[in-house]
Amino acid sequence: MQTVVHDRITEYNSMAHTFAVIMAGGVGSRFWPRSRERSPKQFLEILSSGTLLENTLGRIEPLVEKINTFIVTNRAQVESVVKLVPFLPKENILAEPFGRNTAPCIGLAALWIRRIDPDGLMVVLPSDHLVENTEEFGRVLNTALKVAREKEALVTIGIKPSHPETGYGYIQIEDEDHDRNPYRAEGAYPVKTFAEKPNLETAERFLQSGDFVWNSGMFVWKASAILKAIEVHVPDLHVQLQAVQEAIGTPTYKQTLEQAYGLTRNISVDYGVMEKAGNVFVVKGDFGWSDVGSWDEVVRLTTKDADGNSTRGKALLRDSSNNYVDAGNKLVAAIGVEDLIIIQTDDAVLVCKKGKSQEVKEIVDFIRRKQMNEYL
Amino acid sequence: MQTVVHDRITEYNSMAHTFAVIMAGGVGSRFWPRSRERSPKQFLEILSSGTLLENTLGRIEPLVEKINTFIVTNRAQVESVVKLVPFLPKENILAEPFGRNTAPCIGLAALWIRRIDPDGLMVVLPSDHLVENTEEFGRVLNTALKVAREKEALVTIGIKPSHPETGYGYIQIEDEDHDRNPYRAEGAYPVKTFAEKPNLETAERFLQSGDFVWNSGMFVWKASAILKAIEVHVPDLHVQLQAVQEAIGTPTYKQTLEQAYGLTRNISVDYGVMEKAGNVFVVKGDFGWSDVGSWDEVVRLTTKDADGNSTRGKALLRDSSNNYVDAGNKLVAAIGVEDLIIIQTDDAVLVCKKGKSQEVKEIVDFIRRKQMNEYL
Repeated sequence: MQTVVHDRITEYNSMAHTFAVIMAGGVGSRFWPRSRERSPKQFLEILSSGTLLENTLGRIEPLVEKINTFIVTNRAQVESVVKLVPFLPKENILAEPFGRNTAPCIGLAALWIRRIDPDGLMVVLPSDHLVENTEEFGRVLNTALKVAREKEALVTIGIKPSHPETGYGYIQIEDEDHDRNPYRAEGAYPVKTFAEKPNLETAERFLQSGDFVWNSGMFVWKASAILKAIEVHVPDLHVQLQAVQEAIGTPTYKQTLEQAYGLTRNISVDYGVMEKAGNVFVVKGDFGWSDVGSWDEVVRLTTKDADGNSTRGKALLRDSSNNYVDAGNKLVAAIGVEDLIIIQTDDAVLVCKKGKSQEVKEIVDFIRRKQMNEYL
Repeated sequence: MQTVVHDRITEYNSMAHTFAVIMAGGVGSRFWPRSRERSPKQFLEILSSGTLLENTLGRIEPLVEKINTFIVTNRAQVESVVKLVPFLPKENILAEPFGRNTAPCIGLAALWIRRIDPDGLMVVLPSDHLVENTEEFGRVLNTALKVAREKEALVTIGIKPSHPETGYGYIQIEDEDHDRNPYRAEGAYPVKTFAEKPNLETAERFLQSGDFVWNSGMFVWKASAILKAIEVHVPDLHVQLQAVQEAIGTPTYKQTLEQAYGLTRNISVDYGVMEKAGNVFVVKGDFGWSDVGSWDEVVRLTTKDADGNSTRGKALLRDSSNNYVDAGNKLVAAIGVEDLIIIQTDDAVLVCKKGKSQEVKEIVDFIRRKQMNEYL
């Protein structure tokens, strides 16, 4: 079936080049103590063999040529990325001087892509998500590419919600005027509105209504289209991107980029562009997606034994149930405990009650405030 | 006050030499992962600065001269002992080829002491107990020395029970015939009977009766008296000790000792001698004693903060209460947990529900069966 997917994309490629942009700049403090400043979530093997970044690249491989695949990361992580994906052209690893959220990141990648192909389409993917059904993922992306190409639209991927999740933003689809939407059969709809992370009551209402999907943070558009939208909706970012564009290929590029990022706000593409733009579409997907946003989410996605425990590495559990234990390279012994998440690394251990793993970032904040930098 | 104690003991020393025997052969699997085969409990700093062995030596220092202080340990630990107590004569460290419980250990030390001083008194102390009130401890030992000397008795130290503990053996005192016990004012009584570790109901009855004390495993007697008692009550051990005695000071000592231990049963001095012998006395003590037999006991003896937590090292606790956390040389972070004992070492971590720490030895047994020897 992957061959079919590949054929389709080849068809599109004959009309317009398709590029991929993998956003790999996250610091991933939510997976402390496994994730650190030097090895954030995308570099971890979570729930799979291979890092999340490698798996993201593997998923896009049938759809986008390697030479057209870009990774945006922060400067400190460039070497780690190069080491992990030596098969990508080195010039395709774009280094941000520091993170400024998704809008500048995407804008920067779009500059490079438009420079190569003024009509180029780009698939924007976070590097640290989980996708179970790669085939369906490919189908959804192809639909999104089609809409982005044919309608010059900004297309976002929405996930069919399986439960009233309060940890994600939602997108409401517009499905009243069937006849005027030729993409309906393929699951693409105009966007009615974006909604912030809801409370449980609202999330339940969203789920029941049937016209809300989870905002996955994956996008498809022409580089020229997103740059135009940035010009209209985030003009200050546009100004900085203009400066960067002029410096590409010159000796002042690095310095200009640093200056531009210094003058750029922290702003997401959702808030800055998508919520304000017209001509925004969403393609509904259902391919076993998770943003794996916390240890609790990892626990939820892990296979358990008869006692409800799941373990990695050397873990000795006695009279214990419903625990997640990652022993790292050492040994964990547990006696008489339940509903715990135990994560051991070389220099630290986390013992966290299930349901509390969102608070891991508070621990990291505390470590930062106390300047216990060896643990960051 | 310690001067007074010292004067008293000097008085006894003028009549008969007093010796100390510190039993330091324990493997201490109950304090895993902190305790290991190469660093059992007596070598750990638990609840105090200084190891338990050092503290035991410190307590006996005002009572017994260093040249008269012996340590019995197993062969593998001799070097650790020498390193820890370089101030003791090297020949005072007696090495057992392997552990055979307290009767052979005490018999061996008694041979050496009787050889130096046929009338010598010996104070036998486990190396890994906790004593809070050193002054009262000295007073009790002096009483025991007096009884042992004057009555040629086997004297044991009994602890006034503070609660119906089921983890200790008990000793019933004989207190009916007041007038025939000249040591009563000093807290020394003939022993009526020894009782094994009771169930809770029995322990409560013991506590209420007022004539039961905890068996502390500390003894005072003449070397000649305990060797005589071994001859009568454990004749097979006596035979082996005879062989060892003849080899002391000869080139065949080590080999003979190994042979003798090979032919010797695992037998405690309580079961083998004390429960059978006549002329057994107990001196009642109340000096803040604990055998520190488990992590739960350590937790019980530790000062807690307002949330009921006690921590050692770098421990970050969030929304957590009533935990004991020993972070070792690394970091422990806990979120939303309660009633846990968390012990981190360089290569392992234990997470144990309070009240379950007796099961730590089952973990160690499992590790041994699985031959994960690096964790023993």
